[in-house]
Amino acid sequence: MNPDYDAIGKNFVQQYYAFFDDPNLRGNILNLYSETNSLMTFEGEQILGRVKIMEKLQGLTFKTIQHVVTMVDCQPTFDGGVVIVVLGQLKTDDDPPHTFNQVFVLKHQAGSYYVEHDIFRLSLHM
Amino acid sequence: MNPDYDAIGKNFVQQYYAFFDDPNLRGNILNLYSETNSLMTFEGEQILGRVKIMEKLQGLTFKTIQHVVTMVDCQPTFDGGVVIVVLGQLKTDDDPPHTFNQVFVLKHQAGSYYVEHDIFRLSLHM
Repeated sequence: MNPDYDAIGKNFVQQYYAFFDDPNLRGNILNLYSETNSLMTFEGEQILGRVKIMEKLQGLTFKTIQHVVTMVDCQPTFDGGVVIVVLGQLKTDDDPPHTFNQVFVLKHQAGSYYVEHDIFRLSLHM
Repeated sequence: MNPDYDAIGKNFVQQYYAFFDDPNLRGNILNLYSETNSLMTFEGEQILGRVKIMEKLQGLTFKTIQHVVTMVDCQPTFDGGVVIVVLGQLKTDDDPPHTFNQVFVLKHQAGSYYVEHDIFRLSLHM
């Protein structure tokens, strides 16, 4: 297990949403996923591989977006990766903010990390 | 990857909370975790191994508890396991219900599964 899992996870989260929320940087997200071994579940829709994941993210309809992270929990995996659970608020355009929940599993490979699992849900108003 | 990951994940969730919510069955949860290779993060507190996990769960102070599952997302892992994300409501005693979020990673071993990762959070009221 990597003893730096908490810093790795939290740095990843900061970087990921910094990329996502800036239209000029959003394309960088592609490099955080694997070509063949990244699975995303986006509001229940299953997507495999970074090309299709980027198509999904680039196809979302909003002009401005901001992820405000409220809570991040990280756990080390037994093969050197990190499980990350994010709770936060999502603000798009002039819509009221929504609570969201996103889980990442980072896989360690050749001194770097890629997203092996990504599960995103907007929370329901219950 | 196990093609039955979705049924495995959803059956696990149903079983887990059925055990948890019944004081006479709660002890069965012990067998869902590994002695040495189960990590729990409970409201930010890190716990390793099934004995300490059970101590934590058995030490929670409530008379009655009910987990109402709202949403379950499952993904297959590349080594035959399942990533599970649960959103739901937690009702304890006469308190108002709280939204909760729990992530499990099930590890496949010898034809069975155990919880390798478990991250639980009550949602904040934002």
